[in-house]
Amino acid sequence: MEAHVKDTAPLEERIGYTFQNRKYLDIALTHSSYANEMKKNLSSNERQEFLGDAVLSIIVSDYLFHTFHLAEGDLTKLRAAMVCEKSLCEFARQFSLGDYLKLGRGEEMMGGRTRPSILADAFEALLAAIYLDGGIEPARRFVLGFVVDTLEHRDEFAFTDYKTMLQEIIQKNPEERLSYVLVEESGPDHNKSFVVEVHLNSNVIGSGRGGSKKSAEQAAAREALRLMGECP
Amino acid sequence: MEAHVKDTAPLEERIGYTFQNRKYLDIALTHSSYANEMKKNLSSNERQEFLGDAVLSIIVSDYLFHTFHLAEGDLTKLRAAMVCEKSLCEFARQFSLGDYLKLGRGEEMMGGRTRPSILADAFEALLAAIYLDGGIEPARRFVLGFVVDTLEHRDEFAFTDYKTMLQEIIQKNPEERLSYVLVEESGPDHNKSFVVEVHLNSNVIGSGRGGSKKSAEQAAAREALRLMGECP
Repeated sequence: MEAHVKDTAPLEERIGYTFQNRKYLDIALTHSSYANEMKKNLSSNERQEFLGDAVLSIIVSDYLFHTFHLAEGDLTKLRAAMVCEKSLCEFARQFSLGDYLKLGRGEEMMGGRTRPSILADAFEALLAAIYLDGGIEPARRFVLGFVVDTLEHRDEFAFTDYKTMLQEIIQKNPEERLSYVLVEESGPDHNKSFVVEVHLNSNVIGSGRGGSKKSAEQAAAREALRLMGECP
Repeated sequence: MEAHVKDTAPLEERIGYTFQNRKYLDIALTHSSYANEMKKNLSSNERQEFLGDAVLSIIVSDYLFHTFHLAEGDLTKLRAAMVCEKSLCEFARQFSLGDYLKLGRGEEMMGGRTRPSILADAFEALLAAIYLDGGIEPARRFVLGFVVDTLEHRDEFAFTDYKTMLQEIIQKNPEERLSYVLVEESGPDHNKSFVVEVHLNSNVIGSGRGGSKKSAEQAAAREALRLMGECP
């Protein structure tokens, strides 16, 4: 094994997936700068990146479609935010993908190992590797871990503000009290679905479904806002 | 049933798919102009179009990735050509999708039933309907019928010129004779794979795999060209 090529077992452990055919993993980690340097017809990760782009899109789209009762325009914006280079690069950094890449000498010297475009492309190629090796379900589990986490914890997604918006409207009248009640929890562990009602005093003023309690609460708050005429 | 709403059984027959839950089909056929006119919270096909866009991409990408040994840039161009409005509109016209759409009065009067953007969007929404109702496999069969046919019969796809390019080079020497030999045929009916060798006199000068004999011949010709140094 060449000195700069890391053992990939820790990577498989961190991403929670063990390859049956490590060829796909090897290709995912091979940047074109390395393949070009080696010549001898070595495959770079570019073709897998092409496929991974589409695998990512169907997984994220399917999840958003079923989780959020948003209009097409909002779904499209959310999807774009999840699959953009910035997000993919953040996902890749969470498991130090850059450390495992095979880069050409020039690219290595110019800091390619931390370059966002290289990390985002390699993330897509790795996703395709899981898809080619194990099918759509392990690919889905891999991606949704990052996506759900991002949707729940990144403040810049506008829809996470529905609860706050609703709270601000309701608290103008100090006697009113808002509460969120979980009324349903279903589905297998990796694909749970929650239904939450938002109550104003003892009245149900909205309900929503989501892949987490938090996103179901947001959906419920959004419905309440819509029914109150506060939100498109 | 309203006068302008067609019975959808002939449509199901033409596309070769019968819905278990016709709700998805109804939504796919409902243009936003009709939903807006009806009010009463009728769902238009826009959310399904969002999902169908991604379903289309994974099916076409997976097919191209496995069928053509092309570089990422060529795969991306081919995918773009297959999923563009022009192609989707042609697919939709082949089974008269426009005849089954529910449009608002204004849109109907302005010729919406034959508008390319409306047909392409409805095609994606219909694809999502099949995916939601029956999963990825019937969606794949539905789309690949159009895609494979288009790849084989539309002359503007540059890679269909490999055989011609090879022929033109070979015929400079009138004694040489090119022939294509099918050496393998495998896979189920809806997802066949062919391997073809291209022979120069009695020598194999290239081989290629494809989802049809024609595309396998093109792949074989391309390999021969590449080995001759004629083609990147």
